[in-house]
Amino acid sequence: MAKTFTIGIDLGGTNLKIALFNKNLRCINRHILSTTALGNKDALIAAIIGSVRAILARNRISREQVVGVGMGLPGPIDVEKGVVHFFPNIPGWKDVALERILEKALQLPVRIDNDANVMALAEFKRGAARGSRNAVCITLGTGVGGGLIIDGALYRGSGFAAGEIGHMPVNEEGPDCNCGGSGCLEAYVGNKRILSRARRVFKRQISLEELSRRAQRGDRKAIALWSEVGLKLGVALTGVVNLLNPDCIVIGGGVANAGKILFDTIKETIYIRAMIVQAKQVKVVKAKLGNEAGMIGAALLFERG
Amino acid sequence: MAKTFTIGIDLGGTNLKIALFNKNLRCINRHILSTTALGNKDALIAAIIGSVRAILARNRISREQVVGVGMGLPGPIDVEKGVVHFFPNIPGWKDVALERILEKALQLPVRIDNDANVMALAEFKRGAARGSRNAVCITLGTGVGGGLIIDGALYRGSGFAAGEIGHMPVNEEGPDCNCGGSGCLEAYVGNKRILSRARRVFKRQISLEELSRRAQRGDRKAIALWSEVGLKLGVALTGVVNLLNPDCIVIGGGVANAGKILFDTIKETIYIRAMIVQAKQVKVVKAKLGNEAGMIGAALLFERG
Repeated sequence: MAKTFTIGIDLGGTNLKIALFNKNLRCINRHILSTTALGNKDALIAAIIGSVRAILARNRISREQVVGVGMGLPGPIDVEKGVVHFFPNIPGWKDVALERILEKALQLPVRIDNDANVMALAEFKRGAARGSRNAVCITLGTGVGGGLIIDGALYRGSGFAAGEIGHMPVNEEGPDCNCGGSGCLEAYVGNKRILSRARRVFKRQISLEELSRRAQRGDRKAIALWSEVGLKLGVALTGVVNLLNPDCIVIGGGVANAGKILFDTIKETIYIRAMIVQAKQVKVVKAKLGNEAGMIGAALLFERG
Repeated sequence: MAKTFTIGIDLGGTNLKIALFNKNLRCINRHILSTTALGNKDALIAAIIGSVRAILARNRISREQVVGVGMGLPGPIDVEKGVVHFFPNIPGWKDVALERILEKALQLPVRIDNDANVMALAEFKRGAARGSRNAVCITLGTGVGGGLIIDGALYRGSGFAAGEIGHMPVNEEGPDCNCGGSGCLEAYVGNKRILSRARRVFKRQISLEELSRRAQRGDRKAIALWSEVGLKLGVALTGVVNLLNPDCIVIGGGVANAGKILFDTIKETIYIRAMIVQAKQVKVVKAKLGNEAGMIGAALLFERG
């Protein structure tokens, strides 16, 4: 029987998302599970196995028809060995040979990678960075993730840990960061940081969505706040642009929905601060695949080239 | 007749260095010319042509025995078209099709590239980054140059302008840089900047060599000065390490002779500030090829793989 289906799984701190794709990578069926309710490592692994079996059963697909199971995971991964080093936001994982565990249980080929890498792969092959040769993909959420496409392929680095744009220092004397460094981009533009600044400015709790709406309606305080976020992103990306001379920067994640003000400030900062050859070359675009990127990219781990 | 010789040329703001290499890339003969005395663009091109002809004649080598002429040049280059965009420190060059001009005059294959790229290639294939897979090479002089080895090959970027580590911002509010940006690494650790700080501290003119000797002898002021330079380099390299997860950083150029204090501060800063997987992976080493790197790397432009 021809192998025509691929499974893509996107594991996050909140949800486990699983999708079944046909050979053209169209999504046939998907399912979402809450990860927070699952508890410990073994329960989470059991849930992954269970959800793969369930989606195959539900769609009457046999193991023999499946190319493999790809997974994007929220932490550093040894891609060669198929080992999860740890998850910063899910306790209890330390050097877990997840690929082997899943392959044994499912009797299917499994490939795992970091979630930001998987998203970059999706945007490069099917999204906003299509046709690009060198692309930088950045995801703005609680953390700031990044993935790099170099000379037409996902670049993972010597320890499979490349792409951490969120942990490039933008100010050597800046605030401490969760990563152990100081003045990292993430310490300025992570979700929580933006929200706490907004709370100070508006003297009350305010959501990212409201902050974006206010800015779009012309609220000066909201505009100033997004401009500040855009400036920090622009400074960090200026460093990336001068270093890597990419042709495309893709910006995704919740914060990317802030809209024109954010993107305009980023573009302007790069245009003013980056070197002339590099600045002329690069376009800054919004991610296209949204919440699907993780699952699509995970499935793409099985595509050649 | 077998093609066994390669010519490597290193053009700088001060000198034009030319070397003749045999097929094992051993230098058979070399020659240095002052570029400052040469005057305008046409005179410089004539000098390049003359020096190639002279070194071949002097060694009784015919054109038929030569693989090609490689050149490292001090500015942004369109490697595909063989065009010099401009030289920041040599006036009068704007989009010059140097490769074609030289090929026509010399009747030999010519390849040109940026000097920092060529140095990175040399250190990667014959020097301190040998055996590395992902390496970052940085040259500390009047300017701060950089070249990147990615997945075992020189990475040039979409407009052949990648590697500008000197123009990564380390402080968004930092001093203006020659490149048009602000707070770039080069604005802190370029030669002139170090010397002017030294002049303020020691209340007199002081050379880089003396500054290094003083630090090695335990002079506190000199040590403090090199520590500050090392810290700035360490912060910028922390960003590069988190972003690219290289296994090797090679540091060359005049400033690299400052010795242990400088290297220790750089290593310590990366070790403290970079992310754990990336920090564990990377070694920081001194360049091996010194002033030869440019000529060797230029000749290596003709080596496959």
